[in-house]
Amino acid sequence: MNLIILTETDFRGGNQYHLSDFRAEHIRSILKLGVDDTIEVGLLNGGKGIGRIINIDENRIIIQCDQFAAVEKITPTIDLICALPRPQILRKVLISSAMMGVRRLYLVRANRVEKSYFHSPLLERSRYQPYLTDGMMQGKLTRMPEVTVHDRFKVFFEDFLPGVIDNETLKIIPEPDTGRSLYHTFDKGAEHIVIAVGPEGGWVPFEIELMERLGFVRFTLGRWILRVEHAVTAVLAQLELLRGKQ
Amino acid sequence: MNLIILTETDFRGGNQYHLSDFRAEHIRSILKLGVDDTIEVGLLNGGKGIGRIINIDENRIIIQCDQFAAVEKITPTIDLICALPRPQILRKVLISSAMMGVRRLYLVRANRVEKSYFHSPLLERSRYQPYLTDGMMQGKLTRMPEVTVHDRFKVFFEDFLPGVIDNETLKIIPEPDTGRSLYHTFDKGAEHIVIAVGPEGGWVPFEIELMERLGFVRFTLGRWILRVEHAVTAVLAQLELLRGKQ
Repeated sequence: MNLIILTETDFRGGNQYHLSDFRAEHIRSILKLGVDDTIEVGLLNGGKGIGRIINIDENRIIIQCDQFAAVEKITPTIDLICALPRPQILRKVLISSAMMGVRRLYLVRANRVEKSYFHSPLLERSRYQPYLTDGMMQGKLTRMPEVTVHDRFKVFFEDFLPGVIDNETLKIIPEPDTGRSLYHTFDKGAEHIVIAVGPEGGWVPFEIELMERLGFVRFTLGRWILRVEHAVTAVLAQLELLRGKQ
Repeated sequence: MNLIILTETDFRGGNQYHLSDFRAEHIRSILKLGVDDTIEVGLLNGGKGIGRIINIDENRIIIQCDQFAAVEKITPTIDLICALPRPQILRKVLISSAMMGVRRLYLVRANRVEKSYFHSPLLERSRYQPYLTDGMMQGKLTRMPEVTVHDRFKVFFEDFLPGVIDNETLKIIPEPDTGRSLYHTFDKGAEHIVIAVGPEGGWVPFEIELMERLGFVRFTLGRWILRVEHAVTAVLAQLELLRGKQ
């Protein structure tokens, strides 16, 4: 936990925030901080600041933070479309997405996605949010990705997606054996990027064709084949690197 | 499992290989293949080929492969030094290393590594090898990384390492807030690369200084802070991308 995320619920007036959950436990047992120690804090979807611990007891820690920096804008914006993976993998995708600054996470149906995954309790906000928070606190980002679930492939790509992204968005599909790396695909840079990561076993040809008709381009992450959770980390890491190119 | 790795022990003459372990189970239950079906195979540390299933029963699958391609050379060579993480994370590092083509994995002592980790049973060859095999079968690589354990930091860096790498080797340390990305660090390319990934909490200043004296340079993976397992995937993905630059 490299950053403590503070929410409205924690706020008690006087620039003070009361913590009594896993964050308090972490500050007490792992960081072993005491009164007057300082710690990096960030407002949920807001700015970061330095908090000072002004009171600490068994049940509660009070942190005071008098000033927060302006919200950092993360550019390019990155939206991640992910064929809904099984819950075990979804947890990892949620953490990585939040840790590495994804703006929106679209969990979509695909031919090789098992229908039963859409009934997973993990798709409830209260269940998946802790994984996002975990990722944000690790990555030191304050913005929580927006997560939405879409159980119809065609409807999502043909009707929904065109309404929420602009025409200039770079739309990319990591696919093994495509030949072209992101180094060339991303040549002109982009303000907005949408990545479509397929299920284990990959997108089926029909799905690829439909996405390509909508302007998606395929590229290769590397000479190996990665699992979904590794592909997500790898593509976000490669895009981050290419910012340095501009 | 995208590639079935065959070993000498499987070989029975007449270009035939007998499988009766998790690979047979995978072919039977997940891939649901039968007699005369073909499957991609690779010799451990050797070439790849197309195998044909010539017999299948409850206990055993017999695969015949008459021809293997030449061994693929992976360039640049990548050696990974990793401050020994706790077993749960080590498993992930083993899988990613094998999946993404690491040649040698050095597990080393560092100030922020708990001594007890060096007594983990996972450091026995028979215990860690399955994770390497898992990674290779996922990544479709036949070469198994060499894993060695080094419980003295200074001895490893000052005495051991200089003896096994050449002078031209690019030596890099991913460190948050260093400013310079791999895009510029890797500017001249390299045939051999050594990466030194620190423990949770990072290398301590003494360790960084010692490595820098030996020619290591620091760089930043991105604007976030990653856990060890994500840092490994991210740096390997970024290096792979930069191959396209040459």
